[in-house]
Amino acid sequence: MYDILNKINSPEDVKKLSVIELKELARDIREALFNRLTKIGGHCAPNFGAVEAEIAMHYVFSSPKDKFVFDVSHQSYPHKMLTGRKAGYIDASRFFEDSGYTNPEESVHDLFNVGHTSTSISLATGLAKAREIRGGTEKIVAFIGDGSLSGGEALEGLNMAGSEIHSNLIIIVNDNQQSISETHGGIYRNLKELRESGGRAENNMFTAWGLKYLYVPDGNDIVSLIDAFTEAKNADRPIVVHINTLKGKGFALAEKNKEAWHWTLPFDRQTGEITVPSAKTTYVQIAREYILNRAKTDETFVAVTPNMPGSFSLSKADRESMGEKFVDVGIAEEQAAAMAAGLAKGGAKPLVFTNVTFMQRAYDQISQDVCINGAHVTFLLNCAAFDSLTDVTHLGIFGLSIFSNIPSLTVLTPASKSELAGMLDWALDKNDGASVILMPGGEVTARPQSGFDGSFRYKTEQKGERLAILALGDFYKRGEEIAGRVKDKFGFTPTLIAPGFASSLDEKTLNHLKNNHELTITLEDGVVDGGFGQKIAAFYGDSEMKVKNYGLKKKFYDRYSPEELLRTLGMDTESVLKDIQRLLRLD
Amino acid sequence: MYDILNKINSPEDVKKLSVIELKELARDIREALFNRLTKIGGHCAPNFGAVEAEIAMHYVFSSPKDKFVFDVSHQSYPHKMLTGRKAGYIDASRFFEDSGYTNPEESVHDLFNVGHTSTSISLATGLAKAREIRGGTEKIVAFIGDGSLSGGEALEGLNMAGSEIHSNLIIIVNDNQQSISETHGGIYRNLKELRESGGRAENNMFTAWGLKYLYVPDGNDIVSLIDAFTEAKNADRPIVVHINTLKGKGFALAEKNKEAWHWTLPFDRQTGEITVPSAKTTYVQIAREYILNRAKTDETFVAVTPNMPGSFSLSKADRESMGEKFVDVGIAEEQAAAMAAGLAKGGAKPLVFTNVTFMQRAYDQISQDVCINGAHVTFLLNCAAFDSLTDVTHLGIFGLSIFSNIPSLTVLTPASKSELAGMLDWALDKNDGASVILMPGGEVTARPQSGFDGSFRYKTEQKGERLAILALGDFYKRGEEIAGRVKDKFGFTPTLIAPGFASSLDEKTLNHLKNNHELTITLEDGVVDGGFGQKIAAFYGDSEMKVKNYGLKKKFYDRYSPEELLRTLGMDTESVLKDIQRLLRLD
Repeated sequence: MYDILNKINSPEDVKKLSVIELKELARDIREALFNRLTKIGGHCAPNFGAVEAEIAMHYVFSSPKDKFVFDVSHQSYPHKMLTGRKAGYIDASRFFEDSGYTNPEESVHDLFNVGHTSTSISLATGLAKAREIRGGTEKIVAFIGDGSLSGGEALEGLNMAGSEIHSNLIIIVNDNQQSISETHGGIYRNLKELRESGGRAENNMFTAWGLKYLYVPDGNDIVSLIDAFTEAKNADRPIVVHINTLKGKGFALAEKNKEAWHWTLPFDRQTGEITVPSAKTTYVQIAREYILNRAKTDETFVAVTPNMPGSFSLSKADRESMGEKFVDVGIAEEQAAAMAAGLAKGGAKPLVFTNVTFMQRAYDQISQDVCINGAHVTFLLNCAAFDSLTDVTHLGIFGLSIFSNIPSLTVLTPASKSELAGMLDWALDKNDGASVILMPGGEVTARPQSGFDGSFRYKTEQKGERLAILALGDFYKRGEEIAGRVKDKFGFTPTLIAPGFASSLDEKTLNHLKNNHELTITLEDGVVDGGFGQKIAAFYGDSEMKVKNYGLKKKFYDRYSPEELLRTLGMDTESVLKDIQRLLRLD
Repeated sequence: MYDILNKINSPEDVKKLSVIELKELARDIREALFNRLTKIGGHCAPNFGAVEAEIAMHYVFSSPKDKFVFDVSHQSYPHKMLTGRKAGYIDASRFFEDSGYTNPEESVHDLFNVGHTSTSISLATGLAKAREIRGGTEKIVAFIGDGSLSGGEALEGLNMAGSEIHSNLIIIVNDNQQSISETHGGIYRNLKELRESGGRAENNMFTAWGLKYLYVPDGNDIVSLIDAFTEAKNADRPIVVHINTLKGKGFALAEKNKEAWHWTLPFDRQTGEITVPSAKTTYVQIAREYILNRAKTDETFVAVTPNMPGSFSLSKADRESMGEKFVDVGIAEEQAAAMAAGLAKGGAKPLVFTNVTFMQRAYDQISQDVCINGAHVTFLLNCAAFDSLTDVTHLGIFGLSIFSNIPSLTVLTPASKSELAGMLDWALDKNDGASVILMPGGEVTARPQSGFDGSFRYKTEQKGERLAILALGDFYKRGEEIAGRVKDKFGFTPTLIAPGFASSLDEKTLNHLKNNHELTITLEDGVVDGGFGQKIAAFYGDSEMKVKNYGLKKKFYDRYSPEELLRTLGMDTESVLKDIQRLLRLD
């Protein structure tokens, strides 16, 4: 096992191998992929498909002198194994050393922390231009999947590379005929035409924009790849190397169902069955059922997603059942938001759904196309929680600071199953403007009994005195716990409030609290800066009410333990109780 | 004068005209353009070039049943004149009725409030999809300039239109071989190839992506346009009508210098001279000189702009003098930000400059590509002031709420000429991460003597007691005035602070204030929500210090009088003094 991989300690070692050994190396890398993925999960099919390409890259180019930029970098596992990090794949006790994305802190062979799509060409044009200014000779290689090509940033990058970079720049387009789900858009017609013509079609989106072009029919054949990359290495201006690969190659189940195996939880290699217990009721399940039901019963409803149906468990059959009421725009958040504004103006009722971290790419479109225009668009954003995705590039903790400061946009933070459904109803049927629903990531744990009908901005769940606890979304359960402990420990009943409308002040409720409360604490599932609590602090700033905000610091956290982080931040129940004791002078 | 235009009260009237009359109408429209533009300025060359196209659109299609979506909509003046709003062009007393952009509040013929680029195709795909769902028959027409095509959102829209819309959708590409400044990118090679081949080049970016295609060699010839639009009207799927027009057509000076006449102040029609007095020293002048000087003296400096050199008064000669140290990426803010991250990683020292309202499109790239990666990139953003641009689509009041809540990003707010230069020095030479400098729009009015060297987060300009005034950027002068009036009226000296670092707390200074101050007021040149003052309120929330934040409401203001707005908001000096009197109980 790992006979060849064991010999590889740096890219230099790859260059010494014979063709037969390179193929054996590919086999070893796939074994190592199985080893890690079956045990801890991660991006699966993208890595299986890119093994040969990444071996060939290291065979032809000389990293770290030459610079590789991986798009999303979810497919960079083979590259990592070849650059001194194989232990993160073959040794279970060292899996944690490897982030699953490129990461300059791990290796000089990684230039960027990357996790969002469609950035690689733009980043590479910057490296190439810097080299022109410095007079360097290193090669710059961007590696991008066909799915990522639909993102506007990638197309802006191609446009730039096609005429403004006057030196070598290699853009490897890894065409596996698949995005996260299936691809969508006119680009894919041209890629198909190019594949079918062996790269000879006269209509060629790359050469049209001034790029050189090279086609590799079998992008899983190491020798073809080495030949093509060697040719590209000598190009005097930007060149696209279009390689036709098989996503999931070498893992039969993934080859067959590319979408299901794009990313995976730990699984059994033989059966493909997931080996960790699944959560009970999740927000995703509720959202999925809601969307399917709406599509059946609401004439004008349209669900729009930038290629993230999987994040909402919407299977291919689910999507097909929705017919024209399901629109996947491909990876293109800007298009999703602006198209939704057009849908709303055209008399439809759009719901845009994806993960919160990706939707930030459409800040401008949400502000301008949607909100300035008062378009009736609802955004349902997943993983908007500090304990959902903890990779630095996928944090769900900025939702409030991004969206709650856009005028005319209502941001809702559901705290329970029935609140989520109630908020979707309200956003789609009662609100006539734009809404963002920040959906917690996982299991529904709080208040299964509570509902939401929009009649209160903030809902007072328990009336009390001295202390008011405003606890948002998934942090409501923390507020509940603190309220109970205050009663037990200090002998009075605090007020407990669920501020469902997180983007606005319920001035009536807040003013009322002034009568018999001295302290208000806010608990929010995200960064405090620019979020909910600071609005409350500002509201009470010139009054006698004291305010303390609890939430995360303005910081790019990376792969943390959520509960440990809360303790570090002084947000665990005991620490909050101490603060309350001090601020209310309960000695 | 206006013989034919006078007869046009709705698009129906256009349809009744003969070809000769249509040409006379074009002449009248140009006269009306001169009338308004010479007197109050506005977008100039884009409108002169699009007169025939917009006449032909109204001749062939039937607005408001058929839907027009203008990109940026800065070229929609002729459309406005044809849809009941000619008074806004021919009657000086009614100019104010017309916003200069499409605006649904003005007319049913306008669907969207638009001011940012590259949105029209995406919006139109939404209208088309809604029509498919409803089963409607109206035609949808997007009108987009070649300059706007480089924006990722436009390309995402084209990708979508090319395969996911299965009905009529007309995309008029108004190719005048010019963006705001000259065009940049590979796209323009293909447009040139298409023009030179009379639309017959086999390599065609539009047909490659599955769109139908039609070329009009003379896009200022009404008859050709009518023929082409009539043909397009019957297409069974999305079609691009590529029209070759002359930007500035009919205004000799603008035809000759398209960039200078893209937008204009009031001018003399014969000489082209601007007829309003120019401001004294402006922040733009300082920035321009700084950039030119840096390019001369700093080996690794690169100035990057998404097609906005004009907004910083950088003439063509200026740009040429900078050689490869000037990079215009075309209208593509995402590319500008990500490329800058690449430049920084590649050893260059990038400064990205444009207007603050446009840079919000790169929120994601600034957060992910730049800040997560600790890339040393400086953003110099113009018009970040409440009294700069007052059109709802161009407001400069959201800069702090957008940028100051991104981790690792330092936001600086200069209050004077020397502070701006000092902050640029600090950001480029001393900071090793990313900075945003929010530059006031106009004349430099405050503190010409004060400097900035980054040694203080907040600079205490006057030490005092009881009241602390924290006044940001261009609002420093208001703080100064209030401080003087407090001394005169109430007989004590307040503390006056310029918080140059607007994105972080100077805890030492703030804690120190607790000793002998009871009230802190914050004054910021933008929206309070998510901005600077709320951070101060949160900091003092659990202390005895009272805080009052002054700034704009979270609202999409539109074409307001800045001074009047301050009064409405209770931010004029007299109102603030009354608040201080009340809160400090100075009776």
